[in-house]
Amino acid sequence: MQVIRSIAELRNWRKDAGTVAFVPTMGNLHAGHLALVAEAHRHAQKVVVSIFVNRLQFGQGEDFDAYPRTFDADCAKLEAAGVDVLFFPTEAELYPRVRQAYNVEPPNLQNELCGAFRPGHFRGVATVVTKLFNIVEPDFACFGKKDYQQLAVIRGMVEDLNSPVVVVPVDTGRADDGLALSSRNGYLSDAERAEAPRLYRNLSLIREALAGGDSDYAALEARAKDDLTAHGWRVDYVEVRHAHSLEVAHAGEKHLVVLAAARLGRTRLIDNIEVDR
Amino acid sequence: MQVIRSIAELRNWRKDAGTVAFVPTMGNLHAGHLALVAEAHRHAQKVVVSIFVNRLQFGQGEDFDAYPRTFDADCAKLEAAGVDVLFFPTEAELYPRVRQAYNVEPPNLQNELCGAFRPGHFRGVATVVTKLFNIVEPDFACFGKKDYQQLAVIRGMVEDLNSPVVVVPVDTGRADDGLALSSRNGYLSDAERAEAPRLYRNLSLIREALAGGDSDYAALEARAKDDLTAHGWRVDYVEVRHAHSLEVAHAGEKHLVVLAAARLGRTRLIDNIEVDR
Repeated sequence: MQVIRSIAELRNWRKDAGTVAFVPTMGNLHAGHLALVAEAHRHAQKVVVSIFVNRLQFGQGEDFDAYPRTFDADCAKLEAAGVDVLFFPTEAELYPRVRQAYNVEPPNLQNELCGAFRPGHFRGVATVVTKLFNIVEPDFACFGKKDYQQLAVIRGMVEDLNSPVVVVPVDTGRADDGLALSSRNGYLSDAERAEAPRLYRNLSLIREALAGGDSDYAALEARAKDDLTAHGWRVDYVEVRHAHSLEVAHAGEKHLVVLAAARLGRTRLIDNIEVDR
Repeated sequence: MQVIRSIAELRNWRKDAGTVAFVPTMGNLHAGHLALVAEAHRHAQKVVVSIFVNRLQFGQGEDFDAYPRTFDADCAKLEAAGVDVLFFPTEAELYPRVRQAYNVEPPNLQNELCGAFRPGHFRGVATVVTKLFNIVEPDFACFGKKDYQQLAVIRGMVEDLNSPVVVVPVDTGRADDGLALSSRNGYLSDAERAEAPRLYRNLSLIREALAGGDSDYAALEARAKDDLTAHGWRVDYVEVRHAHSLEVAHAGEKHLVVLAAARLGRTRLIDNIEVDR
Protein backbone atom coordinates (compact mmCIF):
# COMPACT_ATOMS: atom_id res chain seq x y z
CA MET A 1 0.00 0.00 0.00
CA GLN A 2 1.25 3.41 -0.99
CA VAL A 3 0.81 6.23 1.56
CA ILE A 4 0.41 9.55 -0.29
CA ARG A 5 0.40 12.82 1.59
CA SER A 6 0.40 15.43 -1.17
CA ILE A 7 -2.39 16.34 -3.57
CA ALA A 8 0.07 16.64 -6.47
CA GLU A 9 1.40 13.14 -5.89
CA LEU A 10 -2.11 11.72 -5.61
CA ARG A 11 -3.13 13.37 -8.89
CA ASN A 12 -0.01 11.97 -10.52
CA TRP A 13 -0.78 8.45 -9.29
CA ARG A 14 -4.40 8.80 -10.41
CA LYS A 15 -3.48 9.32 -14.08
CA ASP A 16 -2.69 5.65 -14.73
CA ALA A 17 -4.79 4.07 -11.99
CA GLY A 18 -7.73 2.93 -14.11
CA THR A 19 -11.04 2.79 -12.26
CA VAL A 20 -10.94 3.87 -8.63
CA ALA A 21 -13.29 3.30 -5.70
CA PHE A 22 -12.85 5.66 -2.78
CA VAL A 23 -13.54 5.38 0.95
CA PRO A 24 -13.18 8.68 2.83
CA THR A 25 -12.64 8.21 6.56
CA MET A 26 -11.46 10.07 9.64
CA GLY A 27 -9.31 7.11 10.70
CA ASN A 28 -9.61 5.11 13.94
CA LEU A 29 -10.74 2.30 11.69
CA HIS A 30 -12.98 -0.58 12.73
CA ALA A 31 -14.75 -3.45 11.00
CA GLY A 32 -17.37 -1.03 9.62
CA HIS A 33 -14.72 0.81 7.64
CA LEU A 34 -13.25 -2.47 6.42
CA ALA A 35 -16.68 -3.45 5.12
CA LEU A 36 -16.60 -0.22 3.07
CA VAL A 37 -13.17 -1.21 1.72
CA ALA A 38 -14.40 -4.69 0.83
CA GLU A 39 -17.36 -3.17 -1.02
CA ALA A 40 -15.00 -0.75 -2.78
CA HIS A 41 -12.95 -3.66 -4.16
CA ARG A 42 -16.11 -4.99 -5.82
CA HIS A 43 -16.47 -1.86 -7.96
CA ALA A 44 -13.08 -0.78 -9.27
CA GLN A 45 -9.53 -1.82 -10.12
CA LYS A 46 -7.98 0.29 -7.40
CA VAL A 47 -9.13 1.32 -3.92
CA VAL A 48 -8.16 4.62 -2.30
CA VAL A 49 -8.88 5.29 1.36
CA SER A 50 -8.38 8.73 2.87
CA ILE A 51 -7.77 9.49 6.53
CA PHE A 52 -8.43 13.10 7.42
CA VAL A 53 -9.95 14.41 10.62
CA ASN A 54 -11.89 17.29 9.12
CA ARG A 55 -11.96 20.26 11.46
CA LEU A 56 -14.69 21.87 9.30
CA GLN A 57 -17.33 19.35 10.37
CA PHE A 58 -16.67 19.62 14.10
CA GLY A 59 -18.59 22.25 16.03
CA GLN A 60 -17.46 24.32 18.98
CA GLY A 61 -17.11 22.07 22.02
CA GLU A 62 -17.08 18.92 19.89
CA ASP A 63 -14.33 16.34 20.07
CA PHE A 64 -11.99 17.48 17.25
CA ASP A 65 -8.88 17.58 19.42
CA ALA A 66 -9.78 14.41 21.30
CA TYR A 67 -10.79 12.50 18.16
CA PRO A 68 -8.67 9.33 18.17
CA ARG A 69 -5.65 9.38 15.81
CA THR A 70 -4.45 5.80 15.36
CA PHE A 71 -2.38 6.02 12.19
CA ASP A 72 -0.16 2.93 12.61
CA ALA A 73 -3.00 0.61 13.52
CA ASP A 74 -5.11 2.04 10.68
CA CYS A 75 -2.28 1.45 8.18
CA ALA A 76 -1.94 -2.16 9.20
CA LYS A 77 -5.67 -2.76 8.76
CA LEU A 78 -5.78 -1.08 5.35
CA GLU A 79 -2.68 -2.91 4.16
CA ALA A 80 -4.29 -6.22 5.18
CA ALA A 81 -7.49 -5.19 3.40
CA GLY A 82 -5.62 -4.77 0.11
CA VAL A 83 -5.99 -1.02 -0.17
CA ASP A 84 -3.87 0.42 -2.98
CA VAL A 85 -3.44 3.99 -1.76
CA LEU A 86 -3.92 5.64 1.59
CA PHE A 87 -4.34 9.39 1.09
CA PHE A 88 -3.25 11.04 4.32
CA PRO A 89 -3.02 14.81 3.82
CA THR A 90 -2.10 17.33 6.51
CA GLU A 91 -4.47 20.15 7.36
CA ALA A 92 -2.10 22.57 5.62
CA GLU A 93 -2.36 20.48 2.44
CA LEU A 94 -6.16 20.44 2.40
CA TYR A 95 -6.80 23.88 3.97
CA PRO A 96 -3.78 25.98 2.92
CA ARG A 97 -5.62 29.26 3.50
CA VAL A 98 -6.58 28.12 7.00
CA ARG A 99 -10.12 29.39 6.41
CA GLN A 100 -12.08 27.55 3.72
CA ALA A 101 -13.64 30.40 1.73
CA TYR A 102 -15.82 28.50 -0.76
CA ASN A 103 -18.26 25.99 0.69
CA VAL A 104 -20.82 23.55 -0.62
CA GLU A 105 -24.06 24.54 1.04
CA PRO A 106 -26.65 21.79 1.51
CA PRO A 107 -30.37 22.62 1.70
CA ASN A 108 -32.38 23.00 4.91
CA LEU A 109 -32.18 19.28 5.62
CA GLN A 110 -28.72 20.11 6.98
CA ASN A 111 -30.35 21.85 9.96
CA GLU A 112 -32.65 18.97 10.91
CA LEU A 113 -31.99 15.71 12.76
CA CYS A 114 -28.25 15.62 13.61
CA GLY A 115 -27.85 18.99 11.92
CA ALA A 116 -30.06 20.61 14.56
CA PHE A 117 -27.50 19.59 17.17
CA ARG A 118 -24.38 20.15 15.07
CA PRO A 119 -24.66 23.51 13.27
CA GLY A 120 -22.48 23.63 10.17
CA HIS A 121 -21.63 19.94 10.38
CA PHE A 122 -23.09 18.92 7.01
CA ARG A 123 -21.70 21.98 5.24
CA GLY A 124 -18.29 20.83 6.49
CA VAL A 125 -18.94 17.28 5.31
CA ALA A 126 -20.21 18.35 1.87
CA THR A 127 -17.27 20.70 1.39
CA VAL A 128 -14.51 18.27 2.36
CA VAL A 129 -16.08 15.45 0.35
CA THR A 130 -16.24 17.77 -2.69
CA LYS A 131 -12.57 18.58 -2.20
CA LEU A 132 -11.64 14.92 -1.81
CA PHE A 133 -13.71 13.95 -4.86
CA ASN A 134 -11.95 16.66 -6.87
CA ILE A 135 -8.55 15.36 -5.74
CA VAL A 136 -9.11 11.59 -5.97
CA GLU A 137 -11.54 11.72 -8.93
CA PRO A 138 -13.04 8.36 -8.01
CA ASP A 139 -15.50 6.44 -10.16
CA PHE A 140 -17.20 5.08 -7.04
CA ALA A 141 -17.32 6.25 -3.44
CA CYS A 142 -18.54 4.12 -0.54
CA PHE A 143 -20.40 5.57 2.43
CA GLY A 144 -21.88 3.72 5.38
CA LYS A 145 -25.59 3.80 6.14
CA LYS A 146 -24.68 4.25 9.80
CA ASP A 147 -24.27 7.98 9.05
CA TYR A 148 -27.57 8.00 7.21
CA GLN A 149 -28.10 11.73 7.05
CA GLN A 150 -24.53 12.17 5.81
CA LEU A 151 -25.23 9.60 3.10
CA ALA A 152 -28.38 11.51 2.14
CA VAL A 153 -26.44 14.77 1.93
CA ILE A 154 -23.69 13.21 -0.21
CA ARG A 155 -26.21 11.55 -2.52
CA GLY A 156 -28.16 14.79 -2.88
CA MET A 157 -25.00 16.76 -3.54
CA VAL A 158 -23.69 14.34 -6.13
CA GLU A 159 -27.00 14.38 -7.95
CA ASP A 160 -27.58 18.11 -7.69
CA LEU A 161 -24.03 19.16 -8.61
CA ASN A 162 -23.67 16.41 -11.24
CA SER A 163 -20.54 14.95 -9.65
CA PRO A 164 -19.15 12.17 -11.86
CA VAL A 165 -19.12 9.72 -8.96
CA VAL A 166 -21.37 6.76 -8.19
CA VAL A 167 -22.26 6.73 -4.49
CA VAL A 168 -22.35 3.21 -3.04
CA PRO A 169 -24.25 2.88 0.26
CA VAL A 170 -22.99 0.13 2.58
CA ASP A 171 -25.01 -1.52 5.37
CA THR A 172 -24.12 -0.71 8.95
CA GLY A 173 -21.73 -3.11 10.67
CA ARG A 174 -22.92 -4.22 14.11
CA ALA A 175 -21.56 -5.96 17.16
CA ASP A 176 -23.26 -9.24 18.12
CA ASP A 177 -25.54 -7.38 20.52
CA GLY A 178 -26.66 -5.02 17.75
CA LEU A 179 -24.62 -1.92 18.60
CA ALA A 180 -23.65 -0.08 15.42
CA LEU A 181 -19.87 -0.01 14.94
CA SER A 182 -18.53 3.49 15.49
CA SER A 183 -15.25 5.16 16.37
CA ARG A 184 -17.03 6.82 19.25
CA ASN A 185 -17.83 3.43 20.89
CA GLY A 186 -14.25 3.56 22.16
CA TYR A 187 -15.28 6.41 24.46
CA LEU A 188 -17.79 4.21 26.33
CA SER A 189 -17.12 2.87 29.83
CA ASP A 190 -17.83 -0.83 30.40
CA ALA A 191 -21.18 0.01 31.96
CA GLU A 192 -22.08 2.34 29.10
CA ARG A 193 -21.02 -0.28 26.55
CA ALA A 194 -23.38 -2.76 28.20
CA GLU A 195 -26.20 -0.21 28.02
CA ALA A 196 -25.46 1.01 24.47
CA PRO A 197 -27.38 -1.69 22.50
CA ARG A 198 -30.62 -0.27 23.89
CA LEU A 199 -30.53 2.30 21.08
CA TYR A 200 -30.71 -0.37 18.40
CA ARG A 201 -33.26 -2.40 20.34
CA ASN A 202 -35.59 0.59 20.41
CA LEU A 203 -35.13 1.19 16.70
CA SER A 204 -35.89 -2.50 16.08
CA LEU A 205 -39.10 -2.26 18.10
CA ILE A 206 -40.22 0.70 16.01
CA ARG A 207 -39.33 -1.19 12.83
CA GLU A 208 -41.51 -4.11 13.90
CA ALA A 209 -44.41 -1.80 14.67
CA LEU A 210 -44.05 0.03 11.33
CA ALA A 211 -43.75 -3.22 9.40
CA GLY A 212 -46.94 -4.35 11.15
CA GLY A 213 -48.78 -1.31 9.80
CA ASP A 214 -48.54 1.12 12.71
CA SER A 215 -48.32 4.69 11.42
CA ASP A 216 -48.55 6.57 14.71
CA TYR A 217 -44.98 7.78 14.34
CA ALA A 218 -45.20 10.26 17.20
CA ALA A 219 -46.29 7.58 19.69
CA LEU A 220 -43.56 5.18 18.54
CA GLU A 221 -40.94 7.91 18.80
CA ALA A 222 -42.15 8.93 22.26
CA ARG A 223 -42.08 5.37 23.58
CA ALA A 224 -38.46 4.91 22.46
CA LYS A 225 -37.41 8.27 23.88
CA ASP A 226 -39.05 7.45 27.20
CA ASP A 227 -37.31 4.09 27.41
CA LEU A 228 -33.91 5.62 26.65
CA THR A 229 -34.40 8.52 29.05
CA ALA A 230 -35.51 6.13 31.79
CA HIS A 231 -32.18 4.32 31.37
CA GLY A 232 -29.99 7.40 31.68
CA TRP A 233 -29.72 8.49 28.04
CA ARG A 234 -30.12 12.10 26.95
CA VAL A 235 -32.01 11.81 23.68
CA ASP A 236 -31.32 14.28 20.83
CA TYR A 237 -34.00 12.78 18.61
CA VAL A 238 -35.82 9.63 17.57
CA GLU A 239 -37.62 10.21 14.28
CA VAL A 240 -39.42 8.29 11.58
CA ARG A 241 -38.69 9.88 8.20
CA HIS A 242 -39.07 9.21 4.50
CA ALA A 243 -36.14 6.97 3.61
CA HIS A 244 -34.85 8.79 0.53
CA SER A 245 -35.59 12.46 1.05
CA LEU A 246 -35.40 12.33 4.87
CA GLU A 247 -38.50 14.51 4.86
CA VAL A 248 -41.14 14.09 7.55
CA ALA A 249 -43.04 10.92 6.68
CA HIS A 250 -46.76 10.87 5.95
CA ALA A 251 -48.90 8.15 7.53
CA GLY A 252 -48.91 5.16 5.21
CA GLU A 253 -45.53 6.01 3.66
CA LYS A 254 -43.90 2.81 2.39
CA HIS A 255 -40.18 3.67 2.43
CA LEU A 256 -39.18 4.73 5.91
CA VAL A 257 -36.10 5.13 8.00
CA VAL A 258 -36.04 5.42 11.78
CA LEU A 259 -33.17 7.59 12.97
CA ALA A 260 -31.94 8.27 16.46
CA ALA A 261 -29.19 10.14 18.26
CA ALA A 262 -28.71 10.00 22.00
CA ARG A 263 -25.99 10.54 24.56
CA LEU A 264 -24.68 8.06 27.05
CA GLY A 265 -22.52 9.99 29.49
CA ARG A 266 -20.25 12.10 27.25
CA THR A 267 -20.65 9.95 24.18
CA ARG A 268 -23.13 10.75 21.43
CA LEU A 269 -24.30 7.65 19.57
CA ILE A 270 -26.38 7.55 16.40
CA ASP A 271 -28.10 4.72 14.62
CA ASN A 272 -30.90 4.06 12.13
CA ILE A 273 -32.93 1.31 10.49
CA GLU A 274 -34.61 1.37 7.10
CA VAL A 275 -38.12 -0.08 6.84
CA ASP A 276 -39.86 -0.97 3.61
CA ARG A 277 -43.45 -2.00 4.08
CA MET B 1 -19.29 20.03 -34.75
CA GLN B 2 -21.39 17.74 -32.62
CA VAL B 3 -24.33 19.32 -30.76
CA ILE B 4 -24.96 17.38 -27.54
CA ARG B 5 -28.02 18.09 -25.42
CA SER B 6 -27.93 15.37 -22.78
CA ILE B 7 -25.53 14.95 -19.89
CA ALA B 8 -25.31 11.20 -20.45
CA GLU B 9 -24.31 11.66 -24.08
CA LEU B 10 -21.72 14.28 -23.16
CA ARG B 11 -20.20 11.96 -20.55
CA ASN B 12 -20.10 9.18 -23.10
CA TRP B 13 -18.34 11.38 -25.65
CA ARG B 14 -15.90 12.58 -22.97
CA LYS B 15 -14.53 9.09 -22.30
CA ASP B 16 -12.41 8.95 -25.45
CA ALA B 17 -11.95 12.67 -26.05
CA GLY B 18 -8.40 13.02 -24.68
CA THR B 19 -7.62 16.48 -23.27
CA VAL B 20 -10.46 18.96 -23.32
CA ALA B 21 -10.58 22.75 -23.03
CA PHE B 22 -13.96 24.20 -22.12
CA VAL B 23 -15.62 27.55 -22.77
CA PRO B 24 -18.89 28.03 -20.85
CA THR B 25 -21.14 30.71 -22.39
CA MET B 26 -24.71 31.97 -22.34
CA GLY B 27 -24.74 32.20 -26.15
CA ASN B 28 -25.33 35.32 -28.25
CA LEU B 29 -21.72 34.89 -29.24
CA HIS B 30 -19.42 37.68 -30.38
CA ALA B 31 -15.72 38.05 -31.16
CA GLY B 32 -14.91 38.01 -27.42
CA HIS B 33 -16.26 34.47 -27.11
CA LEU B 34 -14.41 33.40 -30.24
CA ALA B 35 -11.16 34.65 -28.66
CA LEU B 36 -11.92 32.29 -25.76
CA VAL B 37 -12.40 29.45 -28.26
CA ALA B 38 -9.14 30.29 -30.02
CA GLU B 39 -7.34 30.24 -26.69
CA ALA B 40 -8.99 26.95 -25.80
CA HIS B 41 -7.58 25.35 -28.96
CA ARG B 42 -4.07 26.23 -27.74
CA HIS B 43 -4.46 24.08 -24.63
CA ALA B 44 -6.17 20.81 -25.51
CA GLN B 45 -6.99 18.28 -28.21
CA LYS B 46 -10.70 18.96 -28.11
CA VAL B 47 -12.75 22.10 -27.44
CA VAL B 48 -16.18 22.02 -25.81
CA VAL B 49 -18.37 25.14 -25.70
CA SER B 50 -21.56 25.23 -23.67
CA ILE B 51 -24.51 27.51 -24.27
CA PHE B 52 -26.82 27.75 -21.29
CA VAL B 53 -28.67 30.83 -20.11
CA ASN B 54 -28.41 30.17 -16.39
CA ARG B 55 -31.52 31.34 -14.57
CA LEU B 56 -29.72 30.91 -11.23
CA GLN B 57 -27.42 33.88 -11.85
CA PHE B 58 -30.16 36.32 -12.88
CA GLY B 59 -31.81 38.33 -10.15
CA GLN B 60 -35.42 39.47 -9.88
CA GLY B 61 -36.08 42.11 -12.50
CA GLU B 62 -32.98 41.18 -14.49
CA ASP B 63 -33.04 40.26 -18.16
CA PHE B 64 -33.32 36.45 -18.02
CA ASP B 65 -36.38 36.26 -20.27
CA ALA B 66 -35.11 38.96 -22.61
CA TYR B 67 -31.57 37.57 -22.78
CA PRO B 68 -30.85 37.05 -26.50
CA ARG B 69 -31.13 33.44 -27.70
CA THR B 70 -29.41 33.19 -31.10
CA PHE B 71 -28.78 29.48 -31.44
CA ASP B 72 -28.42 29.19 -35.23
CA ALA B 73 -26.02 32.10 -35.54
CA ASP B 74 -24.04 30.83 -32.55
CA CYS B 75 -23.74 27.36 -34.11
CA ALA B 76 -22.39 28.79 -37.35
CA LYS B 77 -19.74 30.78 -35.49
CA LEU B 78 -18.66 27.82 -33.34
CA GLU B 79 -18.56 25.50 -36.33
CA ALA B 80 -16.34 27.99 -38.16
CA ALA B 81 -14.14 28.28 -35.07
CA GLY B 82 -13.45 24.54 -35.12
CA VAL B 83 -15.31 23.68 -31.93
CA ASP B 84 -15.63 19.93 -31.44
CA VAL B 85 -18.71 19.78 -29.22
CA LEU B 86 -21.42 22.29 -28.42
CA PHE B 87 -23.10 21.29 -25.15
CA PHE B 88 -26.59 22.76 -25.25
CA PRO B 89 -28.66 21.39 -22.37
CA THR B 90 -32.22 22.33 -21.58
CA GLU B 91 -33.12 23.76 -18.19
CA ALA B 92 -34.81 20.45 -17.32
CA GLU B 93 -31.55 18.65 -18.06
CA LEU B 94 -29.43 20.86 -15.82
CA TYR B 95 -32.05 21.66 -13.15
CA PRO B 96 -34.32 18.58 -13.10
CA ARG B 97 -35.60 19.38 -9.61
CA VAL B 98 -36.44 22.93 -10.70
CA ARG B 99 -34.94 24.27 -7.48
CA GLN B 100 -31.18 23.78 -7.13
CA ALA B 101 -30.84 22.50 -3.56
CA TYR B 102 -27.04 22.30 -3.17
CA ASN B 103 -25.09 25.44 -3.98
CA VAL B 104 -21.48 26.50 -4.05
CA GLU B 105 -21.29 29.47 -1.74
CA PRO B 106 -18.51 32.01 -2.44
CA PRO B 107 -17.09 34.16 0.36
CA ASN B 108 -18.12 37.74 1.12
CA LEU B 109 -16.46 39.04 -2.04
CA GLN B 110 -19.64 37.83 -3.74
CA ASN B 111 -21.56 40.69 -2.10
CA GLU B 112 -19.18 43.45 -3.20
CA LEU B 113 -18.70 45.23 -6.54
CA CYS B 114 -21.19 43.70 -9.00
CA GLY B 115 -22.40 41.40 -6.25
CA ALA B 116 -23.72 44.36 -4.28
CA PHE B 117 -26.07 45.10 -7.18
CA ARG B 118 -26.85 41.51 -8.12
CA PRO B 119 -27.64 39.51 -4.94
CA GLY B 120 -27.02 35.78 -5.43
CA HIS B 121 -25.42 36.29 -8.85
CA PHE B 122 -22.03 34.79 -8.02
CA ARG B 123 -23.54 31.91 -6.07
CA GLY B 124 -25.47 31.12 -9.25
CA VAL B 125 -22.31 31.40 -11.36
CA ALA B 126 -20.20 29.26 -9.00
CA THR B 127 -22.91 26.62 -8.82
CA VAL B 128 -23.56 26.29 -12.55
CA VAL B 129 -19.84 26.28 -13.35
CA THR B 130 -19.32 23.52 -10.77
CA LYS B 131 -22.11 21.54 -12.43
CA LEU B 132 -20.67 22.12 -15.91
CA PHE B 133 -17.16 21.22 -14.74
CA ASN B 134 -18.53 18.00 -13.24
CA ILE B 135 -20.28 17.16 -16.50
CA VAL B 136 -17.61 18.18 -19.05
CA GLU B 137 -14.60 17.29 -16.83
CA PRO B 138 -12.35 19.67 -18.74
CA ASP B 139 -8.59 19.89 -18.28
CA PHE B 140 -8.72 23.63 -19.04
CA ALA B 141 -11.49 26.23 -18.86
CA CYS B 142 -11.28 29.67 -20.45
CA PHE B 143 -12.88 32.72 -18.89
CA GLY B 144 -12.74 36.31 -20.12
CA LYS B 145 -11.22 39.07 -18.03
CA LYS B 146 -14.16 41.24 -19.04
CA ASP B 147 -16.14 39.57 -16.23
CA TYR B 148 -13.27 40.11 -13.85
CA GLN B 149 -15.08 39.42 -10.62
CA GLN B 150 -16.55 36.25 -12.11
CA LEU B 151 -13.03 35.18 -13.07
CA ALA B 152 -11.86 35.87 -9.50
CA VAL B 153 -14.73 33.81 -8.07
CA ILE B 154 -14.03 30.89 -10.43
CA ARG B 155 -10.29 30.97 -9.70
CA GLY B 156 -10.94 31.12 -5.95
CA MET B 157 -13.45 28.29 -6.16
CA VAL B 158 -11.19 26.05 -8.23
CA GLU B 159 -8.31 26.60 -5.82
CA ASP B 160 -10.37 26.28 -2.66
CA LEU B 161 -12.38 23.24 -3.74
CA ASN B 162 -9.39 21.62 -5.49
CA SER B 163 -11.18 21.33 -8.84
CA PRO B 164 -8.99 19.44 -11.29
CA VAL B 165 -9.27 22.22 -13.88
CA VAL B 166 -6.74 24.82 -15.01
CA VAL B 167 -8.43 28.21 -15.33
CA VAL B 168 -7.17 30.20 -18.33
CA PRO B 169 -7.92 33.94 -18.21
CA VAL B 170 -8.35 35.62 -21.60
CA ASP B 171 -7.95 39.35 -22.33
CA THR B 172 -11.04 41.39 -23.02
CA GLY B 173 -11.94 41.84 -26.68
CA ARG B 174 -12.67 45.45 -27.62
CA ALA B 175 -14.22 47.41 -30.45
CA ASP B 176 -11.93 49.93 -32.24
CA ASP B 177 -13.21 52.69 -29.96
CA GLY B 178 -12.34 50.68 -26.85
CA LEU B 179 -15.78 49.42 -25.84
CA ALA B 180 -15.51 45.97 -24.30
CA LEU B 181 -17.33 43.34 -26.35
CA SER B 182 -20.46 42.16 -24.58
CA SER B 183 -23.74 40.51 -25.41
CA ARG B 184 -25.45 43.41 -23.74
CA ASN B 185 -24.01 45.91 -26.24
CA GLY B 186 -26.79 44.76 -28.55
CA TYR B 187 -29.30 46.45 -26.26
CA LEU B 188 -27.74 49.91 -26.90
CA SER B 189 -29.40 52.51 -29.12
CA ASP B 190 -27.17 54.23 -31.68
CA ALA B 191 -26.79 57.24 -29.40
CA GLU B 192 -25.95 55.03 -26.43
CA ARG B 193 -23.47 53.03 -28.51
CA ALA B 194 -21.70 56.27 -29.41
CA GLU B 195 -21.56 57.23 -25.73
CA ALA B 196 -20.58 53.79 -24.41
CA PRO B 197 -16.76 54.00 -24.92
CA ARG B 198 -16.65 56.69 -22.21
CA LEU B 199 -16.56 53.87 -19.63
CA TYR B 200 -13.29 52.51 -20.99
CA ARG B 201 -11.86 56.01 -21.50
CA ASN B 202 -12.39 56.76 -17.80
CA LEU B 203 -10.78 53.48 -16.77
CA SER B 204 -7.83 54.31 -19.06
CA LEU B 205 -7.42 57.71 -17.42
CA ILE B 206 -7.31 56.08 -14.01
CA ARG B 207 -4.78 53.55 -15.27
CA GLU B 208 -2.51 56.33 -16.48
CA ALA B 209 -2.75 58.13 -13.15
CA LEU B 210 -2.05 54.92 -11.20
CA ALA B 211 0.87 53.99 -13.45
CA GLY B 212 2.23 57.49 -12.83
CA GLY B 213 2.25 56.84 -9.09
CA ASP B 214 -1.05 58.38 -8.01
CA SER B 215 -2.52 56.44 -5.07
CA ASP B 216 -5.46 58.69 -4.23
CA TYR B 217 -7.90 56.01 -5.33
CA ALA B 218 -10.95 57.77 -3.91
CA ALA B 219 -10.26 60.94 -5.90
CA LEU B 220 -9.64 59.00 -9.12
CA GLU B 221 -12.83 57.00 -8.62
CA ALA B 222 -14.84 60.15 -7.89
CA ARG B 223 -13.57 61.96 -11.00
CA ALA B 224 -14.60 59.05 -13.22
CA LYS B 225 -18.00 58.73 -11.57
CA ASP B 226 -18.60 62.45 -11.99
CA ASP B 227 -17.69 62.37 -15.67
CA LEU B 228 -19.99 59.41 -16.33
CA THR B 229 -22.86 60.88 -14.33
CA ALA B 230 -22.49 64.20 -16.15
CA HIS B 231 -22.99 62.32 -19.41
CA GLY B 232 -26.17 60.56 -18.40
CA TRP B 233 -24.80 57.34 -16.90
CA ARG B 234 -26.05 55.90 -13.63
CA VAL B 235 -22.92 54.57 -11.99
CA ASP B 236 -23.05 51.41 -9.85
CA TYR B 237 -19.37 51.63 -8.92
CA VAL B 238 -15.90 52.62 -10.04
CA GLU B 239 -13.29 51.02 -7.79
CA VAL B 240 -9.58 50.45 -7.58
CA ARG B 241 -8.89 47.04 -6.05
CA HIS B 242 -6.10 44.57 -5.49
CA ALA B 243 -5.82 42.65 -8.77
CA HIS B 244 -5.78 39.10 -7.42
CA SER B 245 -7.85 39.09 -4.26
CA LEU B 246 -10.16 41.96 -5.34
CA GLU B 247 -9.76 43.30 -1.82
CA VAL B 248 -9.68 47.04 -1.20
CA ALA B 249 -6.24 48.24 -2.32
CA HIS B 250 -3.75 49.89 0.01
CA ALA B 251 -1.92 53.00 -1.19
CA GLY B 252 1.23 51.90 -2.96
CA GLU B 253 -0.20 48.50 -3.96
CA LYS B 254 1.56 47.29 -7.14
CA HIS B 255 -0.98 44.91 -8.67
CA LEU B 256 -4.22 46.75 -9.21
CA VAL B 257 -7.40 46.45 -11.19
CA VAL B 258 -9.85 49.25 -11.87
CA LEU B 259 -13.39 47.97 -12.15
CA ALA B 260 -16.55 49.78 -13.15
CA ALA B 261 -20.22 49.10 -13.71
CA ALA B 262 -22.62 51.74 -14.98
CA ARG B 263 -25.96 51.96 -16.74
CA LEU B 264 -26.69 53.68 -20.01
CA GLY B 265 -30.45 53.81 -20.33
CA ARG B 266 -31.62 50.28 -19.54
CA THR B 267 -28.30 48.63 -20.27
CA ARG B 268 -25.77 47.79 -17.57
CA LEU B 269 -22.20 47.78 -18.86
CA ILE B 270 -19.13 46.57 -16.98
CA ASP B 271 -15.44 46.89 -17.74
CA ASN B 272 -12.05 46.79 -16.03
CA ILE B 273 -8.35 47.35 -16.59
CA GLU B 274 -5.44 45.72 -14.79
CA VAL B 275 -2.54 47.95 -13.77
CA ASP B 276 0.88 46.67 -12.71
CA ARG B 277 3.16 49.41 -11.48
